[in-house]
Amino acid sequence: MTIQFAGAMAPSQSLAVADRLESFCATAEFDRPTLVIDVDRVESQYHALKAGLGHADIHYAVKANPHPAILRRLAQLGAHFDAASRGEIEMCLAAGAMPGDISYGNTIKRVPDIAWAHAHGITLFAADAEEELEKIATHAPGASVYIRVIVEVSMADWPLTRKFGCDRDTALKLLDYAKALGLTPLGFSFHVGSQTRKAEMWSPTLDAVAQLWADAKDAGHELTLLNIGGGFPAFYGEEIQAPTDYAAGVMAMVTERFGHIPRIMAEPGRGLVAEAGMIVAEVVLTSRKSDRDLHRWVYLSIGRFSGLAETEGEAIRYQFTTSHDGEPTGPCIVAGPSCDSADVLYEKRPMNLPLALKAGDRVLIRNTGAYTSTYSSVCFNGFPPLDVVAI
Amino acid sequence: MTIQFAGAMAPSQSLAVADRLESFCATAEFDRPTLVIDVDRVESQYHALKAGLGHADIHYAVKANPHPAILRRLAQLGAHFDAASRGEIEMCLAAGAMPGDISYGNTIKRVPDIAWAHAHGITLFAADAEEELEKIATHAPGASVYIRVIVEVSMADWPLTRKFGCDRDTALKLLDYAKALGLTPLGFSFHVGSQTRKAEMWSPTLDAVAQLWADAKDAGHELTLLNIGGGFPAFYGEEIQAPTDYAAGVMAMVTERFGHIPRIMAEPGRGLVAEAGMIVAEVVLTSRKSDRDLHRWVYLSIGRFSGLAETEGEAIRYQFTTSHDGEPTGPCIVAGPSCDSADVLYEKRPMNLPLALKAGDRVLIRNTGAYTSTYSSVCFNGFPPLDVVAI
Repeated sequence: MTIQFAGAMAPSQSLAVADRLESFCATAEFDRPTLVIDVDRVESQYHALKAGLGHADIHYAVKANPHPAILRRLAQLGAHFDAASRGEIEMCLAAGAMPGDISYGNTIKRVPDIAWAHAHGITLFAADAEEELEKIATHAPGASVYIRVIVEVSMADWPLTRKFGCDRDTALKLLDYAKALGLTPLGFSFHVGSQTRKAEMWSPTLDAVAQLWADAKDAGHELTLLNIGGGFPAFYGEEIQAPTDYAAGVMAMVTERFGHIPRIMAEPGRGLVAEAGMIVAEVVLTSRKSDRDLHRWVYLSIGRFSGLAETEGEAIRYQFTTSHDGEPTGPCIVAGPSCDSADVLYEKRPMNLPLALKAGDRVLIRNTGAYTSTYSSVCFNGFPPLDVVAI
Repeated sequence: MTIQFAGAMAPSQSLAVADRLESFCATAEFDRPTLVIDVDRVESQYHALKAGLGHADIHYAVKANPHPAILRRLAQLGAHFDAASRGEIEMCLAAGAMPGDISYGNTIKRVPDIAWAHAHGITLFAADAEEELEKIATHAPGASVYIRVIVEVSMADWPLTRKFGCDRDTALKLLDYAKALGLTPLGFSFHVGSQTRKAEMWSPTLDAVAQLWADAKDAGHELTLLNIGGGFPAFYGEEIQAPTDYAAGVMAMVTERFGHIPRIMAEPGRGLVAEAGMIVAEVVLTSRKSDRDLHRWVYLSIGRFSGLAETEGEAIRYQFTTSHDGEPTGPCIVAGPSCDSADVLYEKRPMNLPLALKAGDRVLIRNTGAYTSTYSSVCFNGFPPLDVVAI
């Protein structure tokens, strides 16, 4: 099968690796939708980001993809980890990470999980509320904490909701409260928003956090930690800055605003693993609802409930590769295989796909290494979850 | 713990059963969010629907909840099944269903799955496209089929998208095409839309299908099967018609429009199992983002990616019960426990919940027996999937 690229070309740096993934996928047989992960590509991306991040620690956002092969490789490379749950901490430890290199970055933690983490040597916790500090103080006495703040000036492709973080005044109060509870407040965390495609887009967010940082120092707090969170982008068709340039650009902007900070944490997830993954799926059906329809429907073997959850609201425009690329195309509504009418991937902006596409044809979905396999449902409509293979 | 009802009261018929579920849940301990299913309640709902549906066969929409205890009980009662995949057919057969009582109702089927179903005695398939009929004719030669049509006059709470079905002219052509391919076209299927709360709301849809039925007869087709699909409602706070009245009302409207049809299929899913389930979860955190915030945030141990997927767009307004019900309440944004900013259940319309609610408090979520456990992700953010217990 000859593979050609549909739509926009990837940045040249990704091509060689895409070739490796694609040559593997072109010959391998799969009996169900499968995510193939190139762990060497994760390693090269780690080095590329690290080269730009300098003395900042990379805490890999495990939620992006907790596959053991990824965690083991990153642990070998000396990466640190950002865990969202007890389950993710267990996976990091099993992969060889040291407890001191794992932060418990979810601001929403069950009491038994805090106690468990404390008992297993985790010493750094996120918080954005009084009640959370109280839980940590009781069940992980003396722990270090950082306060997550809301910064609402995002230029990201997908700005976050207000779910995480607190406002300036509350953040300052929580530093005091943490101290009063016997905790060690180290600094702040924030999140610039998912898929922030260029370093310069961090500017307004960093300005706002720097002001808060200065206010906290004026209030007598000795801050030693800044967690700049994630937001590192992956290629989904729109131009992004290359990883080393991007990371160096962000760090230069941090230094400009904050001077030297002893400890900086960065939490790439998508930006570290998305481009290392490719999903192999197939066309299950093509149809027209009516003779008058201008577009066709193309139904794939994978959908919103079996791995492509981030197509909700058509947020991510994945790049598809088919064996008919280069042949004439037409507009298609793309949908998943389930009996759920919400399981439609692209309808508001139909995709141009080859007219020759038919049931049984293979479809490769590029840069799907992040936020796919774990979103997959356990057995919605009786379909098994997305399979994962590491190469 | 004293349990009181928050918000609207359930219809009286549900109260006794809710009591059984609630008394079980009030004493049982769970270490993670758990769906408790009362299988006797499924049985009583089956009888209630069957009493109204008369000679129509109930094909339970397995996708609503494929728990083995539900499938076994329904098979014992003589129910038929509507399966969305090979996986669901396997579950039905394992539960004791006969192949002849299982329809393969997904219009989007992989070729190997069609062949497998044919080899295992499945003889009835849905289709809405030429390519699907070709696949069925080749891999399940001689099978019976029904054609799914689109009817766009729904009065349901959640009308379906255009994902399934074809228009009138295409439907008539597909009957001819099925015959030409050596298949046995029996009739039509349609779906009135999810959560159609009263029988009278079926009227415009049934009118449209009756016109198509008449057109097909005029064109010389002998039709013997009408699949009226699902749409049978569950109680989520808004008044619904009682199940026997509802089902009898729908059947009366069918008879009025179609006369006697030898074989009628009805596919309740939600309407059969939703009210038989209750999720036991807990509050993980309560907070305010700012001193100026009028609402609080309440974070639960379950969210959109661990079982409550149908809160997308705040579609379903689940009924919560807490141990503080009856105490003063205030507006709350309700969110899940993951680090995903999209994991927010109710924000546009905050919920009124007790002000005393705090981390660790138990929350019961009523009428959650349908479309919860199987939507749950395999391990998003490292959280295990929703556990299920049948009583």
